[in-house]
Formats: sequence, structure tokens, C-alpha cells
Amino acid sequence: MSPIKFTIEKKLAKSLGRAGRLETPHGVIETPAFVPVGTKATVKALTPKQLEEIGAEVVLSNTYHLYLEPGDELVKEAGGLNKFMNWSRPSMTDSGGFQVFSLGAAYGKNISKIVKGDSPLLLEESREIRDHLTLVDIDHDGVMFKSNIDGSTHYFTPEKSIDVQHNIGADIIFAFDECTSPAEPVGYQKEALDRTHRWARRSLSHHLNDAENAQNQSIFGIIQGGRHEDLRKESAKTIGNMDFDGFGIGGSFAKEDMNMAVEWVNSVLPEDRPRHLLGIGEPEDLFGAIENGCDLFDCVAPTRIARNGSLYTKHGKINILNAQFVKDFTPPDSGCQCYTCQNYTRAYLAHLFRAKEILANTLASIHNLYFIINLVKNIRLSILDENFHQFKENFLKQFIQLRE
Amino acid sequence: MSPIKFTIEKKLAKSLGRAGRLETPHGVIETPAFVPVGTKATVKALTPKQLEEIGAEVVLSNTYHLYLEPGDELVKEAGGLNKFMNWSRPSMTDSGGFQVFSLGAAYGKNISKIVKGDSPLLLEESREIRDHLTLVDIDHDGVMFKSNIDGSTHYFTPEKSIDVQHNIGADIIFAFDECTSPAEPVGYQKEALDRTHRWARRSLSHHLNDAENAQNQSIFGIIQGGRHEDLRKESAKTIGNMDFDGFGIGGSFAKEDMNMAVEWVNSVLPEDRPRHLLGIGEPEDLFGAIENGCDLFDCVAPTRIARNGSLYTKHGKINILNAQFVKDFTPPDSGCQCYTCQNYTRAYLAHLFRAKEILANTLASIHNLYFIINLVKNIRLSILDENFHQFKENFLKQFIQLRE
Repeated sequence: MSPIKFTIEKKLAKSLGRAGRLETPHGVIETPAFVPVGTKATVKALTPKQLEEIGAEVVLSNTYHLYLEPGDELVKEAGGLNKFMNWSRPSMTDSGGFQVFSLGAAYGKNISKIVKGDSPLLLEESREIRDHLTLVDIDHDGVMFKSNIDGSTHYFTPEKSIDVQHNIGADIIFAFDECTSPAEPVGYQKEALDRTHRWARRSLSHHLNDAENAQNQSIFGIIQGGRHEDLRKESAKTIGNMDFDGFGIGGSFAKEDMNMAVEWVNSVLPEDRPRHLLGIGEPEDLFGAIENGCDLFDCVAPTRIARNGSLYTKHGKINILNAQFVKDFTPPDSGCQCYTCQNYTRAYLAHLFRAKEILANTLASIHNLYFIINLVKNIRLSILDENFHQFKENFLKQFIQLRE
Repeated sequence: MSPIKFTIEKKLAKSLGRAGRLETPHGVIETPAFVPVGTKATVKALTPKQLEEIGAEVVLSNTYHLYLEPGDELVKEAGGLNKFMNWSRPSMTDSGGFQVFSLGAAYGKNISKIVKGDSPLLLEESREIRDHLTLVDIDHDGVMFKSNIDGSTHYFTPEKSIDVQHNIGADIIFAFDECTSPAEPVGYQKEALDRTHRWARRSLSHHLNDAENAQNQSIFGIIQGGRHEDLRKESAKTIGNMDFDGFGIGGSFAKEDMNMAVEWVNSVLPEDRPRHLLGIGEPEDLFGAIENGCDLFDCVAPTRIARNGSLYTKHGKINILNAQFVKDFTPPDSGCQCYTCQNYTRAYLAHLFRAKEILANTLASIHNLYFIINLVKNIRLSILDENFHQFKENFLKQFIQLRE
């Protein structure tokens, strides 16, 4: 029996969108919901208390990072991720697949991976750069990669990824997949997809064989397939037919491809299970993804750009380091109900950023996460109120007024 | 009429120590009290909300830093320090004197200052290093110094310091003084002391001439005199006879000199006004200073050492980066009631520090500030309960068990 339960509360007319409830061992997530990323068992610059005040319902940590530092066994010994980081609400870990590839090599370039066995053509192409770029090494069974911290060598198989995620102990874990660059040729995409499907089967089976963990942790399978309709649909069908508790939609998207790819996938996936779009979180993208049937989204963008002084406002993003904000005594985003906007001015934030004060990161992260989390909460309400399209139009009309 | 009111609640038998209440326009400070330092209108890594939860009753910001960045006029335009930084409780600013000297040149060395006019001897001694060390330049009227940010030249007189502090608008401000190194020869200490006394008179008179600010802000005069009993007592007498609302005890102390110097001063100062020992905050020092009649203490140490991974415990300081803490699943300081100790382990903090996560600074600063603030609160209680000496003995016996 799945340790999570998903219920659809309301569907969006003439589209794949829906609002729902996802019950987990650590409480309910009302979907659609934005999932802040706590890479190394901490959402950067924020206490869990601040995260709760922001309204975060769930946090996603990265298996790759925790495996390397402080180590999944230490997290297990500490009582699992939630206890270790003092987070009482639902938690997730990704499978490590994305980081293994993206941090292991020059992600997004054709030269990003050295593939053994399966793809002699790519091997040939890569020969030149092989000697100095061997951070990632894929074989049939798994992936050899080097740590981005100390260069030590590690080997992840689907079974290893699941074992690590069992040790970390989040409510929702993901099957180990190969995340390809959209720039890879279709032949390679197909090969990688087959591998992802085999690895999904092995991840699922390894998970279910561990009765104790399977009782407390749910597992999502990941759909890949790049920008190719046939591959995306094939992947949705293959993964959708497996006994996963939910699904992740993976891959690196060109912005214009995303809605299409998500629609291909969600028109095939079974409706009754939650769908998590991995790594997406900009306001414009969220509307499209929700309209096309996604329920969950994680992304480092809100906190990462916050630490660079970039703040969301209802009129678009502003960079608080711009000279115009030095004497601007209005809140970062007028009308926003977050702690930062209720108590501080743009001038104060501009000062903190210029003075390189740590509090700058905290206050900007609070605002940006609040902005995105509450945007998704409001999209949810608009679905429940049958007001989605109007809400979307109003929001986006205002939001694109400013361009950085 | 002074905008603050100080009442002594209880005196410590056979010594100068006392517990009291200091009423300010932003509320009451129960003394003795530790004052966290918010150098640039932020206590590093903490929100004011966290500071309140820690139990901080008052914050001190640095005039020198705020004058340079973001500028005192901007702070004034923002509605003053409290509003700018969203701090609703009492606030203080120092006079800038300490930073002008300590940041302006190689503080603590005999070569730290170039003195014009007043001291031909020192001028002579300093000739050699004069050309490449002219960040600070003292004359009868004030001090010329260069910004530690951009090297620009600035000139502070007593009047300027007060004007800047009026703009910043804290509840308690300080007279402009010259902070000497204890290593300076006695001749120079005497000269500097005379200057400090003249500047105190000018600071006070300039403050009182500004009726509006004098109605809302109180001013403390600063006692100097290095390690010399006669100079310290002369200074206490001279400054104590002026119409200040309270007193600051300045200077850089050798650890073994401090209690003595404080006793010299406080045995002369009028009893009815609060005494702030500037820049002191290590646990051992606090007992001595309180026993010898000080009411307030500010120090960057608790937060500065926190950011380096050094944590106070009842058994002394520990460095959380030591290997022994990697798998230590006990709180930083067992029994401590702070947010950090109630919710996190040493292992988690060790992980955050190793991973260079921003949250490390926040959690460690919360603990160290809580430790010191509550130590002083407990010393206060021990005075009220006539239990000071027992409390001191018990605390110090435990505290010196560990030495880093």
C-alpha cells in the first residue's frame, strides 16, 4: 500500500490542470504546490521556522549532495532528513540523476558525457575531450562520477540511489534516471531513455523489496525523452504502467518546448497520481505547467536569484542593487504580505546587499519564496474558484511590465 | 530632562555591583544587560524577530559604519535607525571614535596614530611610517580619517559625530572620544585624555543645543585613561561632573587590567546613572565588570566567533569544525533553551559549517547571543537573589573546564 494518498479536488475545464491534496506521512500538501529546494538539508539562508511562516508545505533535498556531504548514513544515524534538518512537514529527495550528469560534466553541451558500450558514435566524437573530461562515465548498470567536492570517484546504480534515499528517509523519493541535454541527438536520447526505463524498473523493484522503507516512503518514476513527442509519450506510457506512487517529469527544457512536452506526457500518464515537474519554478512557466497537468514543482531559482539581489514583484523582477532603489522607502513588492515586505524597504535591502550583509540573503529569500509559493497557492485557488484563466491573464499582464 | 530614567533595584553587598532598570523611549532595559552589536544596522545573520526571541533588549549600531554606508542622512530619511532596521526595542550608537582609530590605522601598535600639533614627540617617532600610514590624522578639533570602504577622506569633530548620531536617531548616543591603545606612553595618554574631555564637553553642549533631538535621545560621556589609575580616576571625575545621562567606559584593556580599571572608574562615577563598558563581552569578563559596577556591555565577539564555528557551552567554547562533532547528535550546549539547541545537533551544525551554508551563521549566532544575553540575565537574577558570588563560582568552575 502506498504511504501517500492523492485526491483530485477540482479539474480545470478543457485542459489537464487540477487542484488536489497529497497526504504524506508528514502531513498534507495542497496541490499545485511549489517545493523549495534544500540542497544540503537546508534551504539556503532560512530556518525551517521561517520556511513554515512563508507557507512552504514540503522541501526537496538533493540525494547527490547529501550522499557526498555529510553522507546518507550520517543522515540516517541522525534520524533521517526531517529530524536532521528540523523540518516537520513533508520532504522529498531527487534521485541524484540530474546532479550526477549536470555537475559531473559540462551539462548542456554535446561533450557532456562519455558513454561506454551503448554508444560508440558518441564515444568517437568525445575522444578528444575524453582525457580531461571524465567526471561522468555511464554504463549499462549505472554511472561512475567524480565528487564536485574532492574529486573522489563514486558509482551510482539505481539500487545505490534507492539505498541512499532510504537512508535519507524523505517521504517521497525518485527513481534513478539519466537526465539528457535537449541538445543530444535523437539516437542518443532514445538510448538514454531505454536506460532510464530499465533503471526505473530496477529502482521500483529495489524499493518495494525493502518492506520497511516502502511502508514509509513513496517512490516517483521519472519520465524523460527530451523534446521528442514520440519519446516523451513512450516514456509516459512505460513509466505510467509501472507501480509508482507518482511521477516526475525530467529533462532540461528550452522555455518554448516545456508546455508542449508536459502536455504530451500528462495526456498519457494515469490521472490518479501526482506529477512533479522537476526543476521548474519561474512564474511564467508555472502557469503553463499547471494548466498542463502538473501538481508539484521544485526549483532553486527563487532562492538563488534572491542571493544575487533579484526580487520578484508583481511587475516582474527587479535587481535591488540598481541605483534607483538606494533611496526607495517602499517595500520590495507593495502589497506583499511576507515578513520582508511587511517590515523592510527597498532602501534597507539595497543597503544590506551593498554592505554584503548575511541578512540580505535571508530577507530576499523569504520574499522570493513567499512570492512563488503564494503564486502557486493562488493559482490553486483560481482552479477551485473556476477563475484560472482570468487570474493567469491578470497576473502575466502585470508581471511582464518590467524586464530586467 | 533626560529622556531615559535609571533606577537601581538592588546593590551587591561589599562591591560596586547593582541590578537596575533603564527606561528609554523604546522600552525598558533590565540591567545588567548585554547589548548585541548591529554594526551596519543589522546584527549579522539575524532578523530582529530572532533577536527578540533570543531575549535581546537593546542593540548598538556603529556610527562610523553607518556614516560611511548607507550614510546617516539616508538613515534619517528612512525614519531613523529603529525603523530602518525594523527594531522596536531600545537602540544605541557609539560615537565613531573607536572605529576612526582602530580601523583608520594599525590599532594597538605604537605606530597607530599620527598626531599633529599636540605631540611633537610622537610625531618625531612616527616620521618614518608617516608617509604610508596616514589613515588617521588627529588635530585639536577632530580627526581626519580615510574610509575603510573606498579610501575617501572624512573629518569628524565632536559636533559632527553628534550630528551624525542625531541623524541615526538611537535612544542612547555617545560623546566623541579618542580611544587610545594601552601601549601608548603615559604622556600621550594624558594628552589624548585631555582631548577626550574637551570633546566630551563639546559633544554634550552640541547635543543639548539641539532641543528636539535632546528630547528623544540621551547621551553618555566616555571615560578613558588607559591603564593608569590617576588618569582613569581623573577622567571619571571630569566626565562624571558633566551633565551626561550615563557613562561609557572606553579603552582597549589587557584582560588582567580590566577589573581594576573598571573599579577605579566606577568608584568615582556618580552612582545614579548607568555605566556602559564598551566592547566587552566574554563570559569571564562580564562577571568582573558587573561586580565592579557596570550595567551595560556590547561586544561583537558572540556573533563574530559564531561565524567561525566557535560556540559557547557551559563547559567553555567548542569549535564545531573539530572532527569529534561530526557524529555528535547532542545539542550544541545541552540544557540550553535557545532555538538552536532545542532543535539541532552538533552534527547538523558541523555539517552546515563544513558545507559553508549560510544557516550555519544564523544558528550559531542565535546560540552564542542567547548564551551571553542569558548569562547576564542570570547574573542579574543572582544579584536580586543575593546569590551572585555562588552563581559566579559555579559558572566559572564549569566554564573553564574546556579550553580551545
